[in-house]
Amino acid sequence: MQKELILEKINQAAKILNEKNIDMWMTYVRETGNMRDPMLDMIVGANATWQSAFIITKNGDTHAIIGSLELENMKSVGTYKNIHPYLKTIKEKFPDVIESIKPNKIALNYSVNSSLADGLTHGLYLDLLEQFKETDYPKKFVSSEDIVAALRGRKSPSEIKLIKEAIAETLKIFDEVTKFLKPGITEKQVAAFVQNLVKERGFELAWDGEYCPSVFTGPDTAGAHSGPTDRAIEPGHIINMDFGIKINGYCSDLQRTWYVLKPGEDNPPEEVTRGFNVIVESITKAARELKPGKEGWEIDQIARNYIQINGYDEFPHGLGHQVGRAVHDGGALLGPKWERYGNLPTLKIEAGNVFTIEPRLTVDKYGIATVEEMVLVNSDGCEFLSERQKELLIIKS
Amino acid sequence: MQKELILEKINQAAKILNEKNIDMWMTYVRETGNMRDPMLDMIVGANATWQSAFIITKNGDTHAIIGSLELENMKSVGTYKNIHPYLKTIKEKFPDVIESIKPNKIALNYSVNSSLADGLTHGLYLDLLEQFKETDYPKKFVSSEDIVAALRGRKSPSEIKLIKEAIAETLKIFDEVTKFLKPGITEKQVAAFVQNLVKERGFELAWDGEYCPSVFTGPDTAGAHSGPTDRAIEPGHIINMDFGIKINGYCSDLQRTWYVLKPGEDNPPEEVTRGFNVIVESITKAARELKPGKEGWEIDQIARNYIQINGYDEFPHGLGHQVGRAVHDGGALLGPKWERYGNLPTLKIEAGNVFTIEPRLTVDKYGIATVEEMVLVNSDGCEFLSERQKELLIIKS
Repeated sequence: MQKELILEKINQAAKILNEKNIDMWMTYVRETGNMRDPMLDMIVGANATWQSAFIITKNGDTHAIIGSLELENMKSVGTYKNIHPYLKTIKEKFPDVIESIKPNKIALNYSVNSSLADGLTHGLYLDLLEQFKETDYPKKFVSSEDIVAALRGRKSPSEIKLIKEAIAETLKIFDEVTKFLKPGITEKQVAAFVQNLVKERGFELAWDGEYCPSVFTGPDTAGAHSGPTDRAIEPGHIINMDFGIKINGYCSDLQRTWYVLKPGEDNPPEEVTRGFNVIVESITKAARELKPGKEGWEIDQIARNYIQINGYDEFPHGLGHQVGRAVHDGGALLGPKWERYGNLPTLKIEAGNVFTIEPRLTVDKYGIATVEEMVLVNSDGCEFLSERQKELLIIKS
Repeated sequence: MQKELILEKINQAAKILNEKNIDMWMTYVRETGNMRDPMLDMIVGANATWQSAFIITKNGDTHAIIGSLELENMKSVGTYKNIHPYLKTIKEKFPDVIESIKPNKIALNYSVNSSLADGLTHGLYLDLLEQFKETDYPKKFVSSEDIVAALRGRKSPSEIKLIKEAIAETLKIFDEVTKFLKPGITEKQVAAFVQNLVKERGFELAWDGEYCPSVFTGPDTAGAHSGPTDRAIEPGHIINMDFGIKINGYCSDLQRTWYVLKPGEDNPPEEVTRGFNVIVESITKAARELKPGKEGWEIDQIARNYIQINGYDEFPHGLGHQVGRAVHDGGALLGPKWERYGNLPTLKIEAGNVFTIEPRLTVDKYGIATVEEMVLVNSDGCEFLSERQKELLIIKS
């Protein structure tokens, strides 16, 4: 199935090259066991030890220039039509292959804005300059960031199916967590419980196991992107968890929020419910405006403003990111125009994009309210891929 | 233990910076979940989502400039003394931190020659040029390849201990394979047996599971760097397997060779034994000359010539590579001066380097004879870390 997925994306890439009027796109790598260009899984499906070039052209041709020891493996992977093995140096094959394409533009994976389009190392870039110093190819080098944003962003039906499967399995695990939570259990114990389920079911974690899941209980927790601690759940805590899995190469990324009733409480305190409801409503408002042609900062601003108008601090991150093979995927980002996000918040949203929507706010003395849903942008709006959390999950003491 | 290992290597890095007269070394990364600079595990031990700079100075100071959401995590990792969190852009902190160091040279992870010193992407390099365009820092950028080669190559006593442990566990698994092999079993079944043992024992594979282990039985097999196939073991086959594991972050990489007796045979045919013995002797001869100050191509040539003098084709790869956190580690390589190896075959071998020695030859009509051992370079020679295979392992039909 991975081979079919890759061929589907290569086919899509050729169409995008036509749309962007770029003749060839080259992913140039080596020692992918040490560091992998993030595009490799999507458009190649093989590893490389020695310098290797994977070329897709506007007319749909594919060329793999690889070390000769990897010829049999590349054949069995079966994703590239023309395979050019070399023994001592890639220069044995490189000039002829490129000459046969006669490109006017050569897209390479470098980008200031997008890490997913930035798999070319600076050393390999210098190597290309040196190899082609007596040609005019270096003048034709352009960034592949538009290609990568389109290709990763516009999910094919098979990709959406895989993402939905990852979401469904993730929500099942959240349900089991709801049964597991009780006072006295630590953040670390919750994380271990979740990771054990993931392992038992043969899934992978969507991100680093140090903070997948992230679990936060009560006030003054460590904050997003921190690992779980020995802090124990207590009555009166808001608990939230950020968690995702990867199945067949595709990710989920979701968050849910619980409240632990104190003895004598039948319902959460009014300020907890209010904070939670502001989060839910901010998601509704943002999703309502999410459609092709919008820019991500516009959607981010809707949720951010709504939360601030309601008297809470703005969240210290973007409202949402794309999800796919990578948990932070695609180009366009639902984020504020902060410099650390580069140009991603001003890229146009496209049909087929899968985004998280994940606002956050702090309820003083109780904890952090967050909900993270996943949505698919369609031709004139968006649909929720995850069944929404619209009410606080309640844990009895 | 990982924290102590990292602090040990940071300390060693500061000494190497003094030796190379470089004031500061900066590992500049982002979205390490998508692509990880290969130095990150050794000298940082944390992930980064937003642009992050990890700086080690000649006087042993360490600075981490990171997104504010990752502050708590970085504190709990505990490997960097000075942590500078930023909210909207790394420029909030970058200039002041570098100004406080006033470096004359700034080593960055880019290298044409070494993938392990080439973790800086071209996009992030362009980002640094832009950020520092009004300063003279860009003129001070130098490649970190000498630092990386020294730091990864000169193993500390704790690193050697971990590598020895990985080797010992690998050899135990080879012993079980010897008991498992028999005619009718396929290469894929052998690989599945091995991967199952690795999983049961809680180890990781040292490289991609598609060809870890690589298993080859009989003549005309797919060749190195190919995955196992449905080809079945038959009497009269030479079988060989290339396999390594990772324990606590450190790798092994070993190969062993078996011969399957035909009905009526008490011993392997003379040409099989002869080919195997040429491999063993080529390892002995190469190891005898392996010592600090030599260059890798000299050692490669000893084994390569010996095999050719004995009437076999030369092997289509280097004689050996360094091993450590990465299965292809360090700088200096025991390889021929082929262009695809860059300058690595001419780097000086140093005490503390751990190398594989892995010659290969084809015995016509029987299969491939390979043995891969691991050695540690000491002050005036080298010692074998793996118990050597000096005789063919025999499988009865």
